[in-house]
Amino acid sequence: MELPFIGRLPAGARDAISDVGSVTVGHCTLDDGAVQTGVTVLRPHAGDPYRDRVPAAAVVLNGFGKSVGLVQVEELGVLETPIALTNTYSVAAVAQAQIRACIAANPESGRGLPTVNPLVFECNDGFLNDIQRMAIGEEHYAQALANAGVDVAEGSVGAGRGMSCFGLKGGIGTASRLAEGCTVGALVLANFGKLPQLRVAGEAIGERLAARQARAEAGPEKGSIILLLATDAPLDARQLRRLALRAGVGLARTGSVFGHGSGDIALAFSTAYTVPLQGDRPMPALAMLHETRLDALFEAAADSTEQAILRALWRAQPVTGRDGHRREALSELT
Amino acid sequence: MELPFIGRLPAGARDAISDVGSVTVGHCTLDDGAVQTGVTVLRPHAGDPYRDRVPAAAVVLNGFGKSVGLVQVEELGVLETPIALTNTYSVAAVAQAQIRACIAANPESGRGLPTVNPLVFECNDGFLNDIQRMAIGEEHYAQALANAGVDVAEGSVGAGRGMSCFGLKGGIGTASRLAEGCTVGALVLANFGKLPQLRVAGEAIGERLAARQARAEAGPEKGSIILLLATDAPLDARQLRRLALRAGVGLARTGSVFGHGSGDIALAFSTAYTVPLQGDRPMPALAMLHETRLDALFEAAADSTEQAILRALWRAQPVTGRDGHRREALSELT
Amino acid sequence: MELPFIGRLPAGARDAISDVGSVTVGHCTLDDGAVQTGVTVLRPHAGDPYRDRVPAAAVVLNGFGKSVGLVQVEELGVLETPIALTNTYSVAAVAQAQIRACIAANPESGRGLPTVNPLVFECNDGFLNDIQRMAIGEEHYAQALANAGVDVAEGSVGAGRGMSCFGLKGGIGTASRLAEGCTVGALVLANFGKLPQLRVAGEAIGERLAARQARAEAGPEKGSIILLLATDAPLDARQLRRLALRAGVGLARTGSVFGHGSGDIALAFSTAYTVPLQGDRPMPALAMLHETRLDALFEAAADSTEQAILRALWRAQPVTGRDGHRREALSELT
Amino acid sequence: MELPFIGRLPAGARDAISDVGSVTVGHCTLDDGAVQTGVTVLRPHAGDPYRDRVPAAAVVLNGFGKSVGLVQVEELGVLETPIALTNTYSVAAVAQAQIRACIAANPESGRGLPTVNPLVFECNDGFLNDIQRMAIGEEHYAQALANAGVDVAEGSVGAGRGMSCFGLKGGIGTASRLAEGCTVGALVLANFGKLPQLRVAGEAIGERLAARQARAEAGPEKGSIILLLATDAPLDARQLRRLALRAGVGLARTGSVFGHGSGDIALAFSTAYTVPLQGDRPMPALAMLHETRLDALFEAAADSTEQAILRALWRAQPVTGRDGHRREALSELT
Repeated sequence: MELPFIGRLPAGARDAISDVGSVTVGHCTLDDGAVQTGVTVLRPHAGDPYRDRVPAAAVVLNGFGKSVGLVQVEELGVLETPIALTNTYSVAAVAQAQIRACIAANPESGRGLPTVNPLVFECNDGFLNDIQRMAIGEEHYAQALANAGVDVAEGSVGAGRGMSCFGLKGGIGTASRLAEGCTVGALVLANFGKLPQLRVAGEAIGERLAARQARAEAGPEKGSIILLLATDAPLDARQLRRLALRAGVGLARTGSVFGHGSGDIALAFSTAYTVPLQGDRPMPALAMLHETRLDALFEAAADSTEQAILRALWRAQPVTGRDGHRREALSELT
Repeated sequence: MELPFIGRLPAGARDAISDVGSVTVGHCTLDDGAVQTGVTVLRPHAGDPYRDRVPAAAVVLNGFGKSVGLVQVEELGVLETPIALTNTYSVAAVAQAQIRACIAANPESGRGLPTVNPLVFECNDGFLNDIQRMAIGEEHYAQALANAGVDVAEGSVGAGRGMSCFGLKGGIGTASRLAEGCTVGALVLANFGKLPQLRVAGEAIGERLAARQARAEAGPEKGSIILLLATDAPLDARQLRRLALRAGVGLARTGSVFGHGSGDIALAFSTAYTVPLQGDRPMPALAMLHETRLDALFEAAADSTEQAILRALWRAQPVTGRDGHRREALSELT
Repeated sequence: MELPFIGRLPAGARDAISDVGSVTVGHCTLDDGAVQTGVTVLRPHAGDPYRDRVPAAAVVLNGFGKSVGLVQVEELGVLETPIALTNTYSVAAVAQAQIRACIAANPESGRGLPTVNPLVFECNDGFLNDIQRMAIGEEHYAQALANAGVDVAEGSVGAGRGMSCFGLKGGIGTASRLAEGCTVGALVLANFGKLPQLRVAGEAIGERLAARQARAEAGPEKGSIILLLATDAPLDARQLRRLALRAGVGLARTGSVFGHGSGDIALAFSTAYTVPLQGDRPMPALAMLHETRLDALFEAAADSTEQAILRALWRAQPVTGRDGHRREALSELT
Repeated sequence: MELPFIGRLPAGARDAISDVGSVTVGHCTLDDGAVQTGVTVLRPHAGDPYRDRVPAAAVVLNGFGKSVGLVQVEELGVLETPIALTNTYSVAAVAQAQIRACIAANPESGRGLPTVNPLVFECNDGFLNDIQRMAIGEEHYAQALANAGVDVAEGSVGAGRGMSCFGLKGGIGTASRLAEGCTVGALVLANFGKLPQLRVAGEAIGERLAARQARAEAGPEKGSIILLLATDAPLDARQLRRLALRAGVGLARTGSVFGHGSGDIALAFSTAYTVPLQGDRPMPALAMLHETRLDALFEAAADSTEQAILRALWRAQPVTGRDGHRREALSELT
């Protein structure tokens, strides 16, 4: 089945979140028997976000999740580390790595300067990955960071290595759309859904595919999805929260009902300006986008999210992991 | 075009919100030249909700709206009047009517007993209706209340009289679904969207229909949608908020991106129990539904909402109103 | 008892909310037997806030309240009418008056231009005022608006006419404080508390005063307080929400526990810039205050709020109203 | 200076959070030169909260904080681990310890059973403790858990070892109050405030004490406070959120303005019932407390919180730590 193009807006040059500002993405993938997991890191700009903070806001669509850092993002409207994605039981190790990286670059962090706020999102890859091993260490975060670039590998890579989506192999997907003279990019860690729910470009093909599946999985959904949006439009935190919610529109179109057991969290950030750590440097004096111009960005957010989820399904390679569990790729059923 | 059946769950006996508990709905419709508007009232039970409060919670998907009563619903987790729907500039008249009705039945309201919290939702029907006339009076609320019954008229009736949806005639729609041994019903006041966005059961037919339209409307979306969900499942306010959010899933599937200028508000209530006004009567001792059983209700909420929106389009009759403005019915384009 | 000066920050020239930008306040007072009520209007600037919107945010400390307009303030981060205060059952009439005033000045409101969002706060003055008469009409709003000026009458005036506070006569109070080169002003409609709870500048004098009261009132608190904060500091909606919360600090210091039956709502706005109604005019390009400079403003918000509440008590005249009910002034007990 | 008794309600038998249900508290304290820190653990009941979940809700008064677990508490209204307190840069280690403890007791966690949601709160003890060493390991969590009992040590113990409060030595404090036939208990980790702000039972003694201080600290507040409330009243998550907010009232009375740089987070839980992990066991059928009976609990929450903060100041021993930094005890100034 060919990957459909979602929506009526044009894609950016790479059709990836790296079309926005100087956003880069890197992966570190662990592929060793029962260890099928990884870390993905998104850098919002080339500098240190601890010193040059990035306006951001999050929306929790369904809060069955263990991500860290959202309390402070909500209060201050900025993020101050690269954004990290990993499996549920490796959040602590990655948060620790973010703290150490910040201290290494800013020796006064937690002393003369404020403590840093780690920002780590997670999904549960326990079907394929032996999550109880907590195989991710601080070095894997460093490696993902070092790998960051504008070419974004998709599918069964980085944090996406062990993830499942609609009972198929899921993982990382990305896309971008142009609107209002701005770019909106999406990057998802897709690990949600049951196959009968799947809709591709509106078509409810899930039940048909499910009939072809060797072994349908019983039980409730236990997945999650992390939805990251970047834009170069000058938006403040309140506007970014409005944008982030529209990632949920794209998610709903693929068949999700934001299931009870799913941690469905969206975060949007702007690359149009930064906020200095301390008050000793001047604040940016920028005109925000007028509210009436947000509609096209909302459509771009929904479309790029839906596209990114489909890309995760299309690009994912089948993976065999813990206890011989195997996730088919979509391509194997179509 | 035939009205498609949405989803995999069975509908209730009437495929209407009145399948839930003893919910009834009534309309009062004003149809007189430039006055094309009305009031719709939903009674959550046959008694007085001021005395026997109904567990409820709301979610604001997009808050470009002037509904009243949500602050107290959020704090106390109950509603205490019938739910009223009308046009934006008639909210005050209908709220006043609710207050007077409460005082008439409870002479101590605002004296020995607490003041009542009016609950009125609105959309802007200004394209067809001369909204500045504020044609709705307290008598129209009373009439809608008196008309309440289990047969729910749909389309261009009650508060739906002047509403537009996807550039076509919209208004009232309803549906219900059965899941987990419970019923979830939806009632919508649909007044949102631009025609090119329309998706019917996933199919993006909007652009095709738009090409057939005599006169496409320019300018941004200025609509709204009110999404009411009823269930007989025993849920508390926190769980009802989770359910209400899933009305947004159904909305998203029809093509909405929760547009900037749209007041998209969902409210869910349970008919399984009531909470007494004062502490002199015992509180209900009821086991709530276990959280893990919510998934099927979430699907029912999304499906019944999507179905109700389509029903509003299918059942609506064309209306000509203010300045000769005319809204075609979907049936005229298909 | 002399009115203590609260805190360590200096007051503005008038020690009133009208020290901030070009804020003005007007009252319309009804004093006729069982009708002891009124309207108070705050104009955030001399122009029309429908066209030049004012950045704003609200915090609901306790949502047992019927104020209207907060859903849209939360979504868009602006207010677009003068702020009105009145009694609980007159909210609808005042909202209607705001709509008519907006249409009169902007004939396209609700047609070519968006509908206006009324912003009306309320407390229940039912002990002194026959609230069921709904004595407030649209003309009283107009009159309060016409009376707006920089000299702010306090105590038993305007919306404060029938209000009670700590079992004594309450009503309108105002104050201001200077910090960080900016001004923060507070205006309260004080109608909360039981006398034994009262603390004046930290001293728990309530129980002592209660012993002197002719007739202590039984039953739970049924009051409310509306807390308005103005500042000329350039803050966005997220920052204004942070500021608004600190009005709750001032409230707590006076002895309130944000009682169950109390509608305790704070709203903060900035006079440093406005946002145009439509995108045809340029957005303001202003550097917001750096977050680290907010601490002094938080103290100013808490202090001016506490001071304003005390001023409501000190300035209030005793009032006799419905059924011969009489509220003593604080001065009568000290 | 004698420790004043706060409020008009009686204290429980121990005047401690362990007066509520079978709540126990344990500490592990690290006191070694530049390492002045620790872990405090609160067990909500004697069983495993992963299997028997405890109804809970949190309120973020000021979100400059790095606590983990709140997203899921907000969504599901329960906590599922003991509550842990530690320093900011040790959150990850303690969260990891909670995960391992859960897996040890529930080998299917993250496999057949859901992943566990760690719940760790933090304050920054960097003035006295070399926070960059991340001296806390998983064994310290285990030790604090093993030490849990009904006698709650206060002051410079456990997570409170390195904490400062109003420029003095702070740390752990607890208290309880009886109201409505129920008990409300508070436990705080107090690490906030500048000395001039301090109010003791309403009296602004801070400036006077500051004058006696050898060396006043410059710079903004960088502290935080964690406010835990337990009650045996049958409350649901919505009601517990209302209760949690009233911890902020007690905090405000001590002089805090919820400073910008402070992570001020309150969490309330009920010991009246538990919710089973999975739907295979019956849900509790319990009548919740009627809303009108909450007022006395609100007062108990505010009073026990204020009392607990004072207890942290009164019980704290002076500590010398990193770089010879020394925090005086309140007793040394009075």
